[in-house]
Amino acid sequence: MERKLVIDPWGETAIEDYSKLFEQFGVEPIDPLIDEFPIKHRLIRRKIIFGHRDLQKILKAIKEGEEYAVLSGIKPTGDFHLGTKLTAEEIIFFQKLSNKAMAFYCIADVEAWNDNGIPFDKAEEIAISNIADVLALGLDPKRVYVYRQSRERRVLQMATVFARGVSMNLLEAIYGPRHFGLYLSAIIQVADILLPQHPDFGGPKPTVIPVGADQDPHIRFARDIAQKYRSIYGFELPSATYHRLMRSLTGEKKMSKRNPMGMFTLTEELESVKFKIMNAFTGGRPTAKEQREKGGVPEICCVYEVLMFHFVEDDSKLLKIYEECVTGKRLCGECKREAAEIILKWLEEHRRRREKFIDLATKLVREGYAT
Amino acid sequence: MERKLVIDPWGETAIEDYSKLFEQFGVEPIDPLIDEFPIKHRLIRRKIIFGHRDLQKILKAIKEGEEYAVLSGIKPTGDFHLGTKLTAEEIIFFQKLSNKAMAFYCIADVEAWNDNGIPFDKAEEIAISNIADVLALGLDPKRVYVYRQSRERRVLQMATVFARGVSMNLLEAIYGPRHFGLYLSAIIQVADILLPQHPDFGGPKPTVIPVGADQDPHIRFARDIAQKYRSIYGFELPSATYHRLMRSLTGEKKMSKRNPMGMFTLTEELESVKFKIMNAFTGGRPTAKEQREKGGVPEICCVYEVLMFHFVEDDSKLLKIYEECVTGKRLCGECKREAAEIILKWLEEHRRRREKFIDLATKLVREGYAT
Repeated sequence: MERKLVIDPWGETAIEDYSKLFEQFGVEPIDPLIDEFPIKHRLIRRKIIFGHRDLQKILKAIKEGEEYAVLSGIKPTGDFHLGTKLTAEEIIFFQKLSNKAMAFYCIADVEAWNDNGIPFDKAEEIAISNIADVLALGLDPKRVYVYRQSRERRVLQMATVFARGVSMNLLEAIYGPRHFGLYLSAIIQVADILLPQHPDFGGPKPTVIPVGADQDPHIRFARDIAQKYRSIYGFELPSATYHRLMRSLTGEKKMSKRNPMGMFTLTEELESVKFKIMNAFTGGRPTAKEQREKGGVPEICCVYEVLMFHFVEDDSKLLKIYEECVTGKRLCGECKREAAEIILKWLEEHRRRREKFIDLATKLVREGYAT
Repeated sequence: MERKLVIDPWGETAIEDYSKLFEQFGVEPIDPLIDEFPIKHRLIRRKIIFGHRDLQKILKAIKEGEEYAVLSGIKPTGDFHLGTKLTAEEIIFFQKLSNKAMAFYCIADVEAWNDNGIPFDKAEEIAISNIADVLALGLDPKRVYVYRQSRERRVLQMATVFARGVSMNLLEAIYGPRHFGLYLSAIIQVADILLPQHPDFGGPKPTVIPVGADQDPHIRFARDIAQKYRSIYGFELPSATYHRLMRSLTGEKKMSKRNPMGMFTLTEELESVKFKIMNAFTGGRPTAKEQREKGGVPEICCVYEVLMFHFVEDDSKLLKIYEECVTGKRLCGECKREAAEIILKWLEEHRRRREKFIDLATKLVREGYAT
């Protein structure tokens, strides 16, 4: 594979998969809005957040000092990993963009039960660990409401209201044939998305939901319901941002827990993480000689992707790695050792930070607020 | 139609319709248990409650002074009528049978919304009026918990738990093809039925659900779910009693709001009630002469049915009406006038009583308890 140095070192390998979102479903590219962000987070600079719906509303609220909400959450099924880290960082980012931002963090224990059979008490335990991670990543505990679906009467009640507007045909079209509990979880998720606009939280307001590119059906469903129940609740249609999905370390299209060699958690044994990095799928050539001559292909390299998505904040440092790779100066063995070193250092620091947040996380999960 | 005096003046005109419940679905006849009731309510004496499931559990609890619960409720869609009166009297009866009985009265506002489009605030208003009727009928306000589905987090939460155990095939088999909200209402109703066994109410206990003969699918569904989630909640399978369904005043098989001439509410204009009684379908003969010769047929007479189900408590008085009818001494015109007089007198007294209960009903609907 011959190649030359490109001007966009963040790569767009996966973006073509998302063209359908732009063309058929009305998601808009993030590019024209990048300049309007008062802070250029790496997820924005590198276009890991590549698309949006109605994000202008949020940028306007930021500019004019008006209230808005950011909501996302986690299905409490296990330890934090790179996917949940990404969403958490997006919440933290939107929370930081204005002191008028209110963050909502949903612990989807109803979905964890219906989809994965995890009982509510076990989900609570997992959620406390997860929230410690989010706090360690930088969530401001003073401007967040953390809640469990199973305990949030407003969410359950709104779900019963929305249920009237939903035909079985629609649910089957969006989610395929599933058992009742999964459909119910989907409608409860719509209620989550609209919770920041409940009268108890000050009523209608711009709300942004940061999600992965595969979550757009949920967003469209929530916007349909918001439209349908506007006359009762006065809802504004929720905005959304979309991030690219990471491939697994072993090269599959989507990182997933089903392939443990392709992912790691933020609390995994460091030796295990290192082993996975050292065995990751790269953009290397069959021989060292050939790689020195032709250069590597970072666009298909999972190690480069992990660094770019998560662990190298400094653009110039990342660009250096990229250039050394494509010009054949950097071979995969040394590169993976360096990457492992960067990642393990980050993980160690993260763990030190998160330990300090366990008590606060417990309070947030059990009581909703830090104060 | 020639006939002779039968020994069972309560008639069994409709009972044959329910034989399927006995033969195919395991409902048992009430007859062998009648002697065990410490009070023989007219609904028992006259076998208006004709069948049951597992009622022995409740009779044992009564005998041994142990706790049990009785739960039923109302879909708040309008004023109290003879059907809702019947269920309310059954709750009151089971509440009265022991001072260890705890009554639960569910206001099914989620179902009223999903089935009839009635918003929660309108449902609250209707429910207050309905609860005033139940209090006027004799409910002991000190031993009842009144709740609205939309506000009862334990019910909504249990529904999310049960949802995992329910396939779409099962729901379609029980309820036919419906929109999502109706299926959700059905699962919430199961959670209602099991609410008295929630840890917050003291955990597992015998519970009786008095229902009409057409409601057995709900009971079977609730018993299936109770069995399925026994390992989590320790549920006892709920018991049930079944009452015969009243025909409409105009002779249709089931009284229904869809035929306003066939029913009346407890707060309807008295003139209107009288008009409906005077125009009711009876068991009279084509001519007065023929009726004097052959006698009337009270078994098919809707006026007799209304008196027997609701307005003549005294068995000897009812038997006298029956005998006069079948022997041709009583003609339909005078009988209907007398019936209207009895019913209107009852309604006037009931209205005087219910007016005094509006404040208490408001408190019960809004706060759940009287104290």
